[in-house]
Amino acid sequence: MINITLPDGAIRQYEKGTTVLDIAKSISEGLARKVLAAEVNGQVWDITRAIKDDATLKLLTWSDAEGKNTFWHSSAHLMAEAVESMFPDVKFWVGPPVDNGFYYDMDLGDRKMNEEDLIALEKKMNELAKKNSEYIRKEMSKAEAVKYFSEKGDEYKLDLLTNLNDGEITFYTQGNFTDLCKGPHIPNTSFIKAIKLTSIAGAYWKGDEKNKMLTRVYGVTFPTQKELDEYLLMLEEAKKRDHRKLGKELSIYTTNDDIGAGLILWMPNGTVIIEELERLAKETETAAGYKRVVTPHIAKENLYLTSGHLPYYADSMYPPMEMEGEKYYLKAMNCPHHHKIFDAEPKSYRDMPYRIAEYGTCYRYEQSGELFGLMRVRCLHMNDAHIYCTKEQFAQEFKAVNDMYLKYFNIFGIEKYVMRLSLHDPEHLGKKYVNEPELWLETEDLVRKVLIETKVPFVEVKGEGAFYGPKIDVQIWSAIGREFTLATNQVDFAQPRSFKLSFTNQNNEPEIPLIIHRAPLGTHERFIGFLLEHYAGKFPVWLAPLQVKVLPISDKFLDYANTVSDKLKKADIRCEVDDRNEKIGKKIRDTELMKVPYMLVVGEKEMNENMVAVRRQGKGDAGVKLVDEFLNEILVEIKERKED
Amino acid sequence: MINITLPDGAIRQYEKGTTVLDIAKSISEGLARKVLAAEVNGQVWDITRAIKDDATLKLLTWSDAEGKNTFWHSSAHLMAEAVESMFPDVKFWVGPPVDNGFYYDMDLGDRKMNEEDLIALEKKMNELAKKNSEYIRKEMSKAEAVKYFSEKGDEYKLDLLTNLNDGEITFYTQGNFTDLCKGPHIPNTSFIKAIKLTSIAGAYWKGDEKNKMLTRVYGVTFPTQKELDEYLLMLEEAKKRDHRKLGKELSIYTTNDDIGAGLILWMPNGTVIIEELERLAKETETAAGYKRVVTPHIAKENLYLTSGHLPYYADSMYPPMEMEGEKYYLKAMNCPHHHKIFDAEPKSYRDMPYRIAEYGTCYRYEQSGELFGLMRVRCLHMNDAHIYCTKEQFAQEFKAVNDMYLKYFNIFGIEKYVMRLSLHDPEHLGKKYVNEPELWLETEDLVRKVLIETKVPFVEVKGEGAFYGPKIDVQIWSAIGREFTLATNQVDFAQPRSFKLSFTNQNNEPEIPLIIHRAPLGTHERFIGFLLEHYAGKFPVWLAPLQVKVLPISDKFLDYANTVSDKLKKADIRCEVDDRNEKIGKKIRDTELMKVPYMLVVGEKEMNENMVAVRRQGKGDAGVKLVDEFLNEILVEIKERKED
Repeated sequence: MINITLPDGAIRQYEKGTTVLDIAKSISEGLARKVLAAEVNGQVWDITRAIKDDATLKLLTWSDAEGKNTFWHSSAHLMAEAVESMFPDVKFWVGPPVDNGFYYDMDLGDRKMNEEDLIALEKKMNELAKKNSEYIRKEMSKAEAVKYFSEKGDEYKLDLLTNLNDGEITFYTQGNFTDLCKGPHIPNTSFIKAIKLTSIAGAYWKGDEKNKMLTRVYGVTFPTQKELDEYLLMLEEAKKRDHRKLGKELSIYTTNDDIGAGLILWMPNGTVIIEELERLAKETETAAGYKRVVTPHIAKENLYLTSGHLPYYADSMYPPMEMEGEKYYLKAMNCPHHHKIFDAEPKSYRDMPYRIAEYGTCYRYEQSGELFGLMRVRCLHMNDAHIYCTKEQFAQEFKAVNDMYLKYFNIFGIEKYVMRLSLHDPEHLGKKYVNEPELWLETEDLVRKVLIETKVPFVEVKGEGAFYGPKIDVQIWSAIGREFTLATNQVDFAQPRSFKLSFTNQNNEPEIPLIIHRAPLGTHERFIGFLLEHYAGKFPVWLAPLQVKVLPISDKFLDYANTVSDKLKKADIRCEVDDRNEKIGKKIRDTELMKVPYMLVVGEKEMNENMVAVRRQGKGDAGVKLVDEFLNEILVEIKERKED
Repeated sequence: MINITLPDGAIRQYEKGTTVLDIAKSISEGLARKVLAAEVNGQVWDITRAIKDDATLKLLTWSDAEGKNTFWHSSAHLMAEAVESMFPDVKFWVGPPVDNGFYYDMDLGDRKMNEEDLIALEKKMNELAKKNSEYIRKEMSKAEAVKYFSEKGDEYKLDLLTNLNDGEITFYTQGNFTDLCKGPHIPNTSFIKAIKLTSIAGAYWKGDEKNKMLTRVYGVTFPTQKELDEYLLMLEEAKKRDHRKLGKELSIYTTNDDIGAGLILWMPNGTVIIEELERLAKETETAAGYKRVVTPHIAKENLYLTSGHLPYYADSMYPPMEMEGEKYYLKAMNCPHHHKIFDAEPKSYRDMPYRIAEYGTCYRYEQSGELFGLMRVRCLHMNDAHIYCTKEQFAQEFKAVNDMYLKYFNIFGIEKYVMRLSLHDPEHLGKKYVNEPELWLETEDLVRKVLIETKVPFVEVKGEGAFYGPKIDVQIWSAIGREFTLATNQVDFAQPRSFKLSFTNQNNEPEIPLIIHRAPLGTHERFIGFLLEHYAGKFPVWLAPLQVKVLPISDKFLDYANTVSDKLKKADIRCEVDDRNEKIGKKIRDTELMKVPYMLVVGEKEMNENMVAVRRQGKGDAGVKLVDEFLNEILVEIKERKED
């Protein structure tokens, strides 16, 4: 008998050689039908593999990232089977799962694939899926494997084999298709109930433009047709809400070739949103005891050598400017500048925690191919702050930062979120991570404890920490269910040492502080990109670039319209008058298109009674009101940052 | 007879060969006693020179810059006479007037000059001045001049002579001292009534460190002892108010070697002032119809080629960063970025004037020797805006900008100011100035008219315009009478053309706008430097980093102190409690030193009656008040941005 330890700590006994599937069935038949793969001693396995020794076991379903990946990876094999049946001369390179589905790179010789092929392939995949073919794993010696692909004349798989050793080579077969693959896979093709091949692209072999261009086919699959339908609907909605499209339509931002790719020019409408976000951040941070600072965007090489950015982060930095024998770099992060402010005057325990905040502008050298609208840019305005605290203060400070996130989620109606606790990877100590193994474990534990205590949903990910300490990446979902990485909350035990920061403790001794790096609102660029999609451009009143438009029915009421507008402006409402000589219907339509929250239509009756006919964007008539009544209502809506 | 045209246009007739002094006497004996030099046909002359032809004439006194310069230049000769009498082997290089006085560079051989020498020299100068020696001008041939200095063995003056031609060489002699000099000079030494030699410095010959180090002696002189006394008092006061000293004492800003010279780190106290200034600017600009934008700090080379910055302004820019085959420059000015925002969407006459504002950060490559506190830095935050308007709108827009300056002067208690209208110099068209002679004259005239109409004090200066058009430099005087160049207001006819900017006018034709560049609050760096001196660090309440400090008489009243403080903070007052276990006397002294406007002392009586004992910084007791009463008073003081 072997002992199987489940995630809740329970230990069950099974006969040696029991499969994961059997174990799942022994727990619940319903569960067994949902299991796609399993984590056995930390490694992801086929559920049909036999377990021979004591092990820890975690069953993986569609709701686990690794479960989904296994499902999509098996779908890539299914697609390859369909391709091979239609294009027998095809040769395959690699076919991994990706963020939303999978792809396979293939060499089709002179043949080009087209949209019609995709439809035929989808049909074929559906047929094959219904055959209920099992994914069969077979361990192979390197010699056998080389022989197999040599006979097949498949130079691509032979190339893959050169990097593999005996004992780590497996083949997977389902139906008529066999692939070199380390797995794991789902038990059989019948799990795949809904299939959509989404696009065809070219991809150089090994990503090198000197190599042959292969054909890459992307697809996505689901366990039910309903999920696929919902996904396609979400894609459709995401297209309508594309922040690049809305950003242009609503005059939020622009870019210009003469200035450079990835360098955002914020137009007046976008700048209003920036300033409202900064106002929110400043209010929140001031109330939480932060002080504000302003630092330059450049610094000498030595600063980034001390901070570790140059050794660990140079690839993401702009090249230096050389003058008077010094190299100056654009800053990629604000932290070293803030450390110098902490260090400018002696600090004592009375000054701790010392919290300094700045909407700091950073520059990052992103590859031009990776630039994308507001989501991946080269100049970013970050809602940054650094908290210098004692070890005793750490938990409370870290929790306060987490609470600030939750406060913001509430304001912006972000209902789904998860915190990813990103840890170091011991294998890369001294390379990707500062070489302080004990401090890593200690601080990771501090952070984990706070997360558990505050009952925030979180997952742990090895090997994604910052180079100076563990971090929390905050993932949020927009109103249409798309995932975004918003912001980070990091603990830093390395920079206080390298910058020789210290404060005098109550025993009159120098002590090294801990630092929390945090940016709850992320960067203006990414957050406004997210908000454009999240709100579909229909910003709540407090964020709307233009809050009110007064629409006179005819020129006769223009003076009155201006009187109303002036009154609102005096109360700091962003308001304009549509003074064009147009029909009222057109004025309303144009204002609706610009997604202005309130339209105030004014004519004879309104003018005589000092009233306005209120229309709410997207909702229509909201009744005729006294100007003062409307003013009071909108002021409350703005002050409380109401969502609708 | 010759016709002499005076500045008011009056023409008077005199005999040929009449001197300026004679003319001055013919106008008024009192005036004649004050005349130091004269502008004859635009050239500055000795007043003892005879006028031989019709001419325009402007008499120059101590209140004219050129009058002062002549006085100080003559004082440099007087000092040289004194030096030569005490150190017969001395050889002189050059001795010009400077901003506040004059200097003379000299070779004293192995002799070093010391403080005692300065005192002796001052005494000698006073003796010589009283001798009433005339400054006598003599035209010399080059041969005679070379002979004179060869015999004297003066290699320095011989070096100067190599660059001079026959017909332009003059000697000036007063008493026993003769110098090669183009003049002009005051009539005689008795004008110089008050003398102070201020310092001794080393200066390489011709500014080249490979050359010999000469001795430079600085001095300043005045027509009366009273003026010298006032000047020395002002210097003393300026020392106390030195913005670098106060900036450190009040924790306003810091710099750091690892970041770089001239790159200001704004500490929390300085950042409060920055944010209050920005709030003022935003309020004022929003009310004046400006919209706000945010632009990146870098751009590609091509942008600055188009703007003309690279051809005309490259010396003041940071070197480029080269990546992906492109050169990126840190922006030295915000204008090209703003032009791209103007140009991002089509504009019509309905959009004009289009006013966009940004507290933009610019980078300028200042020589490290020229960096000075906040006054000359490499990173500057500019109260920038650009107004795109039609020719018809120009006068009104330009006047509105001038009015904004006057509004700010009023807020900051700036009583003395002058606008310098800086014009182009036709000789440098195509080099320092874009080569559009007619547009220069036309726009210079537009600006001049506005200045005359608005009755603002102004002077005209040739050869100091921006490269793209005429500008107004605004000079202001601090509370202790020191002069600062604050800000500019510029008209630009060149960039709209080079950026191909246009709007559709009412005839549905494309038309090129004019641009006004303006920055009434200058840069944060210079303006805060100015304010530190102007207010001697005692900022008005609305600008004060910490507005109120609550001082409990003992720990017993700490809770009450915190209650008061929380109440004030809730009303957005910047408030702290002095919770140290110190005597109340020490708490008051320390708070006075930090120049916090209000101290609220609280003890038994105050606690029982919900009151505070108010002390005003520098003024002492201001009575016991109810907390609410104090709160209402300070809120009004802040809202109205009162000066005291």
